[in-house]
Amino acid sequence: MQPPSETGPGGPVRSVTLLGATGSIGSSTIDLLRRDRSRYRVEAVTAHRNGAALAQLARELGARFAAVADLRAYDELKAGLSGSGIEAGAGPAALVEAADRPAEWVMAAITGAASLAPTLAAAERGATVALANKECLVCAGALFMRRAAAAGATVLPVDSEHNAIFQALSAGRREEVRRIVLTASGGPFRTFSREQMRKVTLEQALKHPIWSMGPKITIDSATLMNKGLELIEARHLFAVRPEELDVVVHPQSVVHGLVEFRDGSVIAQLGSPDMRIPIAHCLAFPERMATPAQRLDLARISTLTFEEPDPERFPALSIARHALVAGGGAPTVLNAANEVAVAEFVAGRLGFAGIPALVEATLDAVERNGEMVEPQSVDQAVAVDHNARRQASHLLPEIAAMAS
Amino acid sequence: MQPPSETGPGGPVRSVTLLGATGSIGSSTIDLLRRDRSRYRVEAVTAHRNGAALAQLARELGARFAAVADLRAYDELKAGLSGSGIEAGAGPAALVEAADRPAEWVMAAITGAASLAPTLAAAERGATVALANKECLVCAGALFMRRAAAAGATVLPVDSEHNAIFQALSAGRREEVRRIVLTASGGPFRTFSREQMRKVTLEQALKHPIWSMGPKITIDSATLMNKGLELIEARHLFAVRPEELDVVVHPQSVVHGLVEFRDGSVIAQLGSPDMRIPIAHCLAFPERMATPAQRLDLARISTLTFEEPDPERFPALSIARHALVAGGGAPTVLNAANEVAVAEFVAGRLGFAGIPALVEATLDAVERNGEMVEPQSVDQAVAVDHNARRQASHLLPEIAAMAS
Repeated sequence: MQPPSETGPGGPVRSVTLLGATGSIGSSTIDLLRRDRSRYRVEAVTAHRNGAALAQLARELGARFAAVADLRAYDELKAGLSGSGIEAGAGPAALVEAADRPAEWVMAAITGAASLAPTLAAAERGATVALANKECLVCAGALFMRRAAAAGATVLPVDSEHNAIFQALSAGRREEVRRIVLTASGGPFRTFSREQMRKVTLEQALKHPIWSMGPKITIDSATLMNKGLELIEARHLFAVRPEELDVVVHPQSVVHGLVEFRDGSVIAQLGSPDMRIPIAHCLAFPERMATPAQRLDLARISTLTFEEPDPERFPALSIARHALVAGGGAPTVLNAANEVAVAEFVAGRLGFAGIPALVEATLDAVERNGEMVEPQSVDQAVAVDHNARRQASHLLPEIAAMAS
Repeated sequence: MQPPSETGPGGPVRSVTLLGATGSIGSSTIDLLRRDRSRYRVEAVTAHRNGAALAQLARELGARFAAVADLRAYDELKAGLSGSGIEAGAGPAALVEAADRPAEWVMAAITGAASLAPTLAAAERGATVALANKECLVCAGALFMRRAAAAGATVLPVDSEHNAIFQALSAGRREEVRRIVLTASGGPFRTFSREQMRKVTLEQALKHPIWSMGPKITIDSATLMNKGLELIEARHLFAVRPEELDVVVHPQSVVHGLVEFRDGSVIAQLGSPDMRIPIAHCLAFPERMATPAQRLDLARISTLTFEEPDPERFPALSIARHALVAGGGAPTVLNAANEVAVAEFVAGRLGFAGIPALVEATLDAVERNGEMVEPQSVDQAVAVDHNARRQASHLLPEIAAMAS
């Protein structure tokens, strides 16, 4: 159930909580809040471990509660909040408390498995959840969407591709959708030969042509695993069948997503590469707020290109699609194995081609061991994830040797 | 007021009337009706002068009334309908009668000034009007939209560009729209130099790169006057200010129109060049029906390009924009003068550059004579139109000599 709306002197006030306030998505959200402070009241803010920065934000935004995930950062947060009257918390339970507090709208921008419990807590009390983490949908998608629906929560995708699809879907009804197409930049190796791809270095993989992001997601963009994970997210977000989902490579990243309806109309959302656009869409939903994002100038951009993804050079996409079709625990295993593989690649212990190879081997091993179960709770999702990580680490030496 | 919906054994039945059943838009509409006859009941069909073809269609579709605009075609129609029990009519009053009969949905695909009275009749009884003629909006846009709104009519644009905008607008609210962008193919002379454009022949002007259409609209596409007229239509259809309207040249004609919202999101409608797509959108609105239109394959199309229209080589667009900003009777005069100019170009009595020159000279002359009045009725619109045609014919020799 949605908490009652609040009203201020300037009209309705939306109460908001930011889970992950000091990260990139959190900062962009705060940038938008700052532009029209009278329309928002900040209930709670959380951060991973930067207590001082969080305390400063909490004071500026007038939050009622601030929490850090890392217990060791509690003292710093507490000191920073001294005299402000803002409550402080730390640890996993404090994150859930932040999510549970009565804010109409929650930005779920914590990454990793730590996001599961607080995001679920927000959804289960019927809040509008702006979902900026992959884990809830990839590792526990069926569970998450089922509980959100039961609680009457609204789940809004923040990711530019899914947000684009969400916007395009408003042009028709669910049963009128024929196909959902996610666009992929193709990453830095789009035009590399198979030979060139064998010698890819970490430095090369960290150069994304369009978006400036963290190393994990940048490497996922280079393997196209990122798009595979997005297919899995899209399946749950939009309740579509795997065969209704498609990917097209679009290097300019201007068209963020497309929906084909049964009459032949294709509705697309386009925009400059500025995360404030999808965040603003979620923040003001079902209305639209003004943003300072650069206006799209198609004549200046001049050319948009599209091509099929190459399954030979980018096997991660096919592996992810198999996990998507298999369903159950496969996406959870896929995601966990990929996290291990990317970390090993970053650490220099696995070649670039070893990333999809390790993921595929892990999926096979978990399946063979009869451990491919669909998570029915957050704890189970975490258990499936941990088991997959163990398997991936176990398989690492063999795969690293083979793929080098 | 909308006539009550009808119900058949297979669910709700939509009663439809086709004004202009034998033309290209009429034929495409009938192609869609044929695919699911149980969902539609045909009330009336009209044609210009092909009585035999209309009689055959009326029989096939089980229409109750059929009318030809040309009185001389009445006998042929009457003979063709003999023994069918279908009523026959002829002349302008019969077209209005066809529009007036109780059909929930009316396809207004009669072209020219003859379209005004019947289309207005359908709108004034509150029908859903699928608008496939330019004249209602260009010559009497304010009047038409005001009367349609007063009667509670729904006006749906059939034209692929306006239909695209209409679809894209569903992703937000009117006050959230920052800009509406119409796409233009650029016509056959997009890449011509100023020198080449001076020697353009009729044959060259009749070759449209994408759509196969009649000579008038093909030449309007070559001058870009077509896009200028579409700006005027868009102004009335979507109740936007001239400065909110823009044109971008997009030679592949895959993106049919775009709407920029204030958050920076741009929503576009794309599709194969098949008029059945926008017609189906109107026919099933607010639902969407399946069509056999070719599915859009962006990877196969591969490249979409965009550029600013060149005002030097395509002065018609600027002239139309001036008429758009001026409002009142200017768009009516623009349209009438352009019809004269194109007819004279087709007849070989005016060069290609003479088309915009004659339109501009006519606008100036009508303004100078103090005859630029906003039509308050269909009769007044027709009078403004006739006066402009007279002025254009009067100016023709001078302009033809100057522009040759």
